[in-house]
Amino acid sequence: MSKGIPDKNKDFSAWYNEIIKKADLAENSPVRGCMIIKPYGYSIWEKMQSILDKMFKDSGHYNAYFPLFIPKSYLSKEADHVEGFAKECAVVTHYRLKNDENKKGLIVDPKAKLEEELIVRPTSETVIWNSYKNWIQSYRDLPILVNQWANVVRWEMRTRLFLRTSEFLWQEGHTAHSNKDEAIKETLTILNIYSSFLEEYMGIPVLKGIKSESEKFAGAVDTYCVEALMQDGKALQAGTSHFLGQNFAKAFDVQFANSNGKMDYVWGTSWGVSTRLIGALIMSHSDNNGLILPPNLAPIQIVMIPIFNSDSEYDAIINLFEKIKIGLLKLNISCKIDARKFHKPGWKFAEYEMKGVPLRIAAGPRDLEKNTLEIARRDNLKKETISLDKAEQKIKKILELIQKDILKKAKNFRDNNSHNARDYDEFKNLVKNNSGFIYAHWDGTEKTEEKIKSETKATIRCIPYDNKGKPGKCIVTGKPSKQKVVFSKAY
Amino acid sequence: MSKGIPDKNKDFSAWYNEIIKKADLAENSPVRGCMIIKPYGYSIWEKMQSILDKMFKDSGHYNAYFPLFIPKSYLSKEADHVEGFAKECAVVTHYRLKNDENKKGLIVDPKAKLEEELIVRPTSETVIWNSYKNWIQSYRDLPILVNQWANVVRWEMRTRLFLRTSEFLWQEGHTAHSNKDEAIKETLTILNIYSSFLEEYMGIPVLKGIKSESEKFAGAVDTYCVEALMQDGKALQAGTSHFLGQNFAKAFDVQFANSNGKMDYVWGTSWGVSTRLIGALIMSHSDNNGLILPPNLAPIQIVMIPIFNSDSEYDAIINLFEKIKIGLLKLNISCKIDARKFHKPGWKFAEYEMKGVPLRIAAGPRDLEKNTLEIARRDNLKKETISLDKAEQKIKKILELIQKDILKKAKNFRDNNSHNARDYDEFKNLVKNNSGFIYAHWDGTEKTEEKIKSETKATIRCIPYDNKGKPGKCIVTGKPSKQKVVFSKAY
Repeated sequence: MSKGIPDKNKDFSAWYNEIIKKADLAENSPVRGCMIIKPYGYSIWEKMQSILDKMFKDSGHYNAYFPLFIPKSYLSKEADHVEGFAKECAVVTHYRLKNDENKKGLIVDPKAKLEEELIVRPTSETVIWNSYKNWIQSYRDLPILVNQWANVVRWEMRTRLFLRTSEFLWQEGHTAHSNKDEAIKETLTILNIYSSFLEEYMGIPVLKGIKSESEKFAGAVDTYCVEALMQDGKALQAGTSHFLGQNFAKAFDVQFANSNGKMDYVWGTSWGVSTRLIGALIMSHSDNNGLILPPNLAPIQIVMIPIFNSDSEYDAIINLFEKIKIGLLKLNISCKIDARKFHKPGWKFAEYEMKGVPLRIAAGPRDLEKNTLEIARRDNLKKETISLDKAEQKIKKILELIQKDILKKAKNFRDNNSHNARDYDEFKNLVKNNSGFIYAHWDGTEKTEEKIKSETKATIRCIPYDNKGKPGKCIVTGKPSKQKVVFSKAY
Repeated sequence: MSKGIPDKNKDFSAWYNEIIKKADLAENSPVRGCMIIKPYGYSIWEKMQSILDKMFKDSGHYNAYFPLFIPKSYLSKEADHVEGFAKECAVVTHYRLKNDENKKGLIVDPKAKLEEELIVRPTSETVIWNSYKNWIQSYRDLPILVNQWANVVRWEMRTRLFLRTSEFLWQEGHTAHSNKDEAIKETLTILNIYSSFLEEYMGIPVLKGIKSESEKFAGAVDTYCVEALMQDGKALQAGTSHFLGQNFAKAFDVQFANSNGKMDYVWGTSWGVSTRLIGALIMSHSDNNGLILPPNLAPIQIVMIPIFNSDSEYDAIINLFEKIKIGLLKLNISCKIDARKFHKPGWKFAEYEMKGVPLRIAAGPRDLEKNTLEIARRDNLKKETISLDKAEQKIKKILELIQKDILKKAKNFRDNNSHNARDYDEFKNLVKNNSGFIYAHWDGTEKTEEKIKSETKATIRCIPYDNKGKPGKCIVTGKPSKQKVVFSKAY
């Protein structure tokens, strides 16, 4: 049971770190705060990329690539952007090294100092809107629906693999529109893509909402977000989609001639998800045996492990597996036969449990006799014996069931960990017990939000925008509140 | 004919720049030497990526991701690497900005100086071998067959879009092996993947060979390369595959226990191709009408353009196109119907010629009457009328023919521009006239190589390694030469 992994109910943080290590997903690099994404971890990211990329393209977006470096002065052009955005950036000041004349090694060549320092992009709004100025003249050039897959750097003091690293991988969409409605529609289209992706592929239910003023992206008019609940009762912001209004267009003077020939500023959006999603995936489903991957996102959906005493048994079982594999491939199911002889079946079982492979198939001499297979689900650890007859179809159905069950379990968890706080005492108690999403009335002021945050560490995760909320009174000040908002401690 | 593009026979360089601009592939960024890859240009890169990625994976490689930053001291660890590798790197010295107290804007926070400067990776051997030290203990951990798709930075003083930019995109493979033979085999496996990719997809024939000592990668034992010939008679190094011996293993102390339990240093390779390939693509095939893309690499393989006088004609033709499109999609052929009404057919013809779409289909009222289509090949600009009967199959065959013809034309060009130089005078004349690949005897010394380079600007592009060469005498010194080597001016 333990396998050297800390119990997630006792030390969630140590459990998280150990899963990343034992499932061979990633490791810290010698450069502070940067991570090395190992092949197995990266294959999960590739799966995420390919699914999201298709969703973006199917909705009319194109990929492009903008430079890694941003001139320092660009960051100051949009007033809120520079005020609100973290200033912890990697700064390039020189462009050459030289051999140290006195001793071995390299030193920075003082003669090669840049006139203007370059910032390694923390996000690309500035450099992209600076380009859009040249790309857009008339309404016929709009919309521009561009996305890029890139690395970004935000110098973090306290880092956690996947959740908060100085360099991380993400996609950032940057779109330009001729009118406000279209830009808001785009913001919501993307929010819906994110929530579909999280629910249908990652098996993670999300709350959709809008950020409070203090939590929104610096430079946005409105930040929409998808918020997920982790197994330790803390929230995680899984993706954001920003309605930028005309802020960046004004900062970079991006105007267009509308169909009447009148000049107007362009409307913008930006949106992104990152390798942080892998952190969300781990913390949503995994258990004390290791990672649990939903079939729709698993790089290996099925592993087949032979159990044998003799070479002839081994050959017969591998033969059988090869046949099943072909049948599964036809159903678009990826599988791996672990034919290694130098590891025992039990060792392999534990290995693939750790790596979260959704379904394990084992077969031994008795299965050969009886024309059966033993299958074991990773999510609930249940085993069953199935007959070889139409096995592929049965396996496909089981994978679909696993996908559904993983989402259902996460939904149940979230429902059981969503609470209404009628007053501030109840609120404080709920936060103290890591009770997940807490719905409470708030008077809408930054002052109250800040007071709650400093006293409880809970922040407003999102404000529902579906207009279903009813008015009430703020739990702190008693002032009027339009609707309840969602609080939680968060990653 | 001209369309505002300079004649490639008169000013190849201006022609090249203008194609990039008019085909909307890329543009210079405000940051010196960095480029913005625009959606159409990026879609070509995506196509290259997906094909190469599949080739790498089919041959057993996995993707991973290593950090953007390399501690400065790492670069000095492999002696040849630091000596030979360009020291023009982007150097990160600080990690924070702050508001300038005196005036508006941001300044670098002097308190946030890094203890050790970080280099933005120019290539990742050092940081990767530093990791491999922890990944490899025994022969059972080998081979490691890792690739990464990443951005790299080499500070260039004179830049050209795609060919030489300070930041560029590439893939870099870094493999580790338990023995020399396997590592050399890996180096050649990759070289063959590169040459297949260039010939079969890009339509570019390549010479395979080995670099001279002075041209090889700093830190490699041997650098293998694929060299292509551009239409102006200059060579372009399209990809390299390095046999690293045990150099980086020794520099980073990466040892493993072999099957007898004895410790030994690991053998390595590294290999890469970059967005430079897009430059090669342009300079290999394109003409004064714009880009020419081989069908196997074209993001849009076919464009369909309606010719109409009335709305009913328009509707009927678009209807017809939709049917053909479905038929073509079934054959895995990508096509775009340009249904825009506000551009005239002639304008569209020129647009897609400029963008290099391999085949154009047009249909007008007369085609509707006669059940025909007009098709026009981009590569040779020839038009023909085909009947609708089994049109999709015919179109597929024509695309295959275009692919073949583009390669054939490039092969003919290369054959016509490959010469033997019997003496140094003939050699100089050939180089002066940009005569392409020049085969000549060389005494094998760096001194002679350097003399030829400084006097003619021609460099050794590669040394054939097929052992088919016959001995002779060096064209400069008259000293013995094992075989002819290939010289050219190069990008």
